[in-house]
Amino acid sequence: MARASGGESVLSKHLRVLGTFEAAVPFLTLTEISDRAGLAPSTAHRIVAELEHEGLLERLPDRTYRLGIRLWELACRTPGALGLRELARPYLQAVHARVRQHIQLAVLSGTEVLFLDRLSVRDAVVNATLIGGRIPVHASSSGLVMLAHAGPAVLEEVLSKPMHRFTPHTITTERELRAMLRRVRADGWAVTDGHIHEESRGIAVPVYGAHNDVIAAIGLVVPNDDVPVLGHIELLSHAAREISVALRAAYLPTGHPSATPGGRFRPLVNSSLKSMEYLESISVSRGA
Amino acid sequence: MARASGGESVLSKHLRVLGTFEAAVPFLTLTEISDRAGLAPSTAHRIVAELEHEGLLERLPDRTYRLGIRLWELACRTPGALGLRELARPYLQAVHARVRQHIQLAVLSGTEVLFLDRLSVRDAVVNATLIGGRIPVHASSSGLVMLAHAGPAVLEEVLSKPMHRFTPHTITTERELRAMLRRVRADGWAVTDGHIHEESRGIAVPVYGAHNDVIAAIGLVVPNDDVPVLGHIELLSHAAREISVALRAAYLPTGHPSATPGGRFRPLVNSSLKSMEYLESISVSRGA
Repeated sequence: MARASGGESVLSKHLRVLGTFEAAVPFLTLTEISDRAGLAPSTAHRIVAELEHEGLLERLPDRTYRLGIRLWELACRTPGALGLRELARPYLQAVHARVRQHIQLAVLSGTEVLFLDRLSVRDAVVNATLIGGRIPVHASSSGLVMLAHAGPAVLEEVLSKPMHRFTPHTITTERELRAMLRRVRADGWAVTDGHIHEESRGIAVPVYGAHNDVIAAIGLVVPNDDVPVLGHIELLSHAAREISVALRAAYLPTGHPSATPGGRFRPLVNSSLKSMEYLESISVSRGA
Repeated sequence: MARASGGESVLSKHLRVLGTFEAAVPFLTLTEISDRAGLAPSTAHRIVAELEHEGLLERLPDRTYRLGIRLWELACRTPGALGLRELARPYLQAVHARVRQHIQLAVLSGTEVLFLDRLSVRDAVVNATLIGGRIPVHASSSGLVMLAHAGPAVLEEVLSKPMHRFTPHTITTERELRAMLRRVRADGWAVTDGHIHEESRGIAVPVYGAHNDVIAAIGLVVPNDDVPVLGHIELLSHAAREISVALRAAYLPTGHPSATPGGRFRPLVNSSLKSMEYLESISVSRGA
């Protein structure tokens, strides 16, 4: 492993610099980068120059930097993020057309929920979700459905750390959390009234992958009022089943009778049928 | 610059490995990675292990690798890609609701068009666009509107290379290209009938940024038939103007009378008004 001084790998230093950029601070000066990364200015300067040279950072006319479009371009080839989002998108849209609030798609990442997609309308309720953003698993309805189906090691890790209290309704004790997870397993969904913000309710259901394991969750964020939740749960459960079917079809070998067209593009791309057939013809002619 | 043998930087080798993954080949074995990257197996093995350790690659149960979700997570903080997509999304959706085909958002990247977003319906016409995918600028209606407003250096670079012929209608000569660019500048839009696929028509308009420069294009891909294009152009032009207004508002200083709520989150996030106010309150309390 190529190591810089102090035994830290070169890659890890590069990632430390890229990691200084956040959703709330997408533009940084060289000084801010070196401060936030905890690197000597000369080291930060050298790494920033390398990252800029490769298009992973972009320098703007006002001499601040932002993450570069090449990073995003590489990221568009991640089946676990963009592929899942592309496959799930039409089913999220169908629910969104019925429930004009927020709908989101999430995966588990350590003890946090990582949000892959969100559709919102302008007058929807308060929602803390950012695309590419994280929320602790204990506070999120999507997190709770994934935790309920995760191995005991994840639960142990969640319990080993303090659970941040967002509102008086947030789950913060082991007893409350275990009771909630039992309920989620029995019901097949999670409902959280005001756990992150008093005005908002989360409703989430699991999404099963090809091996019948829970690989994601989809959830609504709606007003925390007395509208019954069962209609919403039914819409979400139907969408989750359709996403599972689409996932299985995307991973079937090309030529399988149940495989959708699109050949090797299927795990990442979801376009019109004719476009998928066209992509399949390209991937065949390329010898793929 | 930390250099591996042969003078190539460590970063560049890492990117060479990440770059072996494509939309059509999102899963690769270690041997395939080392072949495609042109690296010795031992070198590829070491780099893959580092990238896996940092979450930039993920190893699957069948021992293939895919690009990791951490890459995508970093990419969600790129204002030039995800930020622009988030801001443009509601206006793309509005056009998509009226024209049930493909609508897409693109930026110029070298002499290629890089697509940041695409909304499609299942029965839409053939379209070669992938999110995160590239198409040569001379063949794409979005490419032509951006090229028409780019500096002469970009045009020179396009002209210095052969222009790939997709169909008999593709522009492949300097004379045709210059004539098209004059027309695009006069009209304010580009229409390409069957330039990439005989069955499809591209219609694109420019999107102006804060400094009145063309920073992106939005375009429709519709059937190549005798439906008049002016109605579509009007819808696209209206959406492009709204995206420009949203972009300017997103980059105004917090507290400016015309600034939308959301504080420092505005260049990257587009959620409901209440959510943006909530994010602004968070970014203020963090001292941002």
